[in-house]
Amino acid sequence: MAHRPGDVVETTLRVRYAETDQMGVVYHSNYLIWMEVGRVELCRSLGVRYREMEREGVLLTVAEASCRYHAPAHYDDEVIIRTWIEQSHARMVTFGYEMREKEQGTKLATGFTKHVFCGRDLKPAKLPRGYWREFGIAQPDHDGRE
Amino acid sequence: MAHRPGDVVETTLRVRYAETDQMGVVYHSNYLIWMEVGRVELCRSLGVRYREMEREGVLLTVAEASCRYHAPAHYDDEVIIRTWIEQSHARMVTFGYEMREKEQGTKLATGFTKHVFCGRDLKPAKLPRGYWREFGIAQPDHDGRE
Amino acid sequence: MAHRPGDVVETTLRVRYAETDQMGVVYHSNYLIWMEVGRVELCRSLGVRYREMEREGVLLTVAEASCRYHAPAHYDDEVIIRTWIEQSHARMVTFGYEMREKEQGTKLATGFTKHVFCGRDLKPAKLPRGYWREFGIAQPDHDGRE
Amino acid sequence: MAHRPGDVVETTLRVRYAETDQMGVVYHSNYLIWMEVGRVELCRSLGVRYREMEREGVLLTVAEASCRYHAPAHYDDEVIIRTWIEQSHARMVTFGYEMREKEQGTKLATGFTKHVFCGRDLKPAKLPRGYWREFGIAQPDHDGRE
Repeated sequence: MAHRPGDVVETTLRVRYAETDQMGVVYHSNYLIWMEVGRVELCRSLGVRYREMEREGVLLTVAEASCRYHAPAHYDDEVIIRTWIEQSHARMVTFGYEMREKEQGTKLATGFTKHVFCGRDLKPAKLPRGYWREFGIAQPDHDGRE
Repeated sequence: MAHRPGDVVETTLRVRYAETDQMGVVYHSNYLIWMEVGRVELCRSLGVRYREMEREGVLLTVAEASCRYHAPAHYDDEVIIRTWIEQSHARMVTFGYEMREKEQGTKLATGFTKHVFCGRDLKPAKLPRGYWREFGIAQPDHDGRE
Repeated sequence: MAHRPGDVVETTLRVRYAETDQMGVVYHSNYLIWMEVGRVELCRSLGVRYREMEREGVLLTVAEASCRYHAPAHYDDEVIIRTWIEQSHARMVTFGYEMREKEQGTKLATGFTKHVFCGRDLKPAKLPRGYWREFGIAQPDHDGRE
Repeated sequence: MAHRPGDVVETTLRVRYAETDQMGVVYHSNYLIWMEVGRVELCRSLGVRYREMEREGVLLTVAEASCRYHAPAHYDDEVIIRTWIEQSHARMVTFGYEMREKEQGTKLATGFTKHVFCGRDLKPAKLPRGYWREFGIAQPDHDGRE
């Protein structure tokens, strides 16, 4: 793959009318959905299709989400989502995000989401080794201590 | 139960800010979600908790949805959803809906959703007999062939 | 413009996790939002940026929406939305839609939305002449009867 | 009013099918919408109808939102949202939230949202005096300069 765990990956989306509210700007919870869009594309660029990972029984549940809103996004704006892995180990991964309006470059929002690797039962479970490299988790030298 | 299959059941909800769009009124796809709210309460009033039905492997997939918008709903309005079973047989059920603004009684929307009974695999499957009465499906007179 | 009012315009989007429900497929109200995405791109291809039109005081309110669901869409699917103008005159326009899963070509849904042209006050108002051509409305021969 | 700015106000809502995702639990961005529901009810209990406040040109824009997810909420659960004012002054107000599943009392999520008072132009503007008491902002002792 061209991308590596430390890289920042950019995704672009266009603001939907449905995402606005009566203030005439994007309703704030939608930024969390945009983070998801960015996260999925980051994973894809690292060689992980989240859909397949989930089919194999590895789920990423959200433990925390945080967003600071700098400037409002408007209907039909193109928004660039920059996503990166902020921190990761065998049990958790934190993604960082920055969202900008494409034309002017205005910073719209920054934030992070913290995820726990889980099994199909939604109970925490170590990320299988096969995925460590993609998520930037250092391989233990010898004895398997992480 | 007090309610029977032919009855109209009323549910009330309050419009959320998140449901508005920049026109200053409720975005139209939300009415389909409100229909779901009405449908679930109708089922409950008939003695069927949809959650349990689904756990037992009986799913209601949507085959068709239709809505006519008469007047816009606004943020913080209380909306009354009237729901009823329009038609039903062992393979399908159609729900009818009418939504009104509570205070003035203004008619907001009318519509219907048509559903196919399915199994866990999302493949069409006859509704088990145990649910026929609740959904207003006539019992066969004698030989049980449906 | 390359596109003309009778044309079918294709838009592609990728299914978001947020759009799925616990049945493991896309929740049905989201198709109405996808129709909006298709409609906006159709308008753009005809030379109308809906955002600008709205700023000029021409709003498209939804009078009716209808959708038939043929097969479920899944998370991370790419969906092709085909959109066209089904009917139009100075007071209303109806858009038609067909949605397919890109890889297999499976038909997911078909539907239409009917819209009334309105002014900023959300009251019906004839579409200004300047937009007639884009929406495929025939120019009157002589005396302005539409 | 029975309620005062320091009070915790409880609101109950029922999880909608539309709010679940394919993990079988509530999609995480919906908690921000639930916070809005709690916030609006808190305001109402303090004597402020947010709809009226906005009509008078006082808007509450979101500057930051944060949520920790403790346990997943499920379809048809009743959720109790406890909301309170965590901090407030003439330019900002922070609301705190705790969400629990009603029947078992399980803590689902905790979080906060930080808001900036704005005018109709979405530019920051001091909250008019008439609202200070409701938002728990101390009146200045003497000369009233804000």
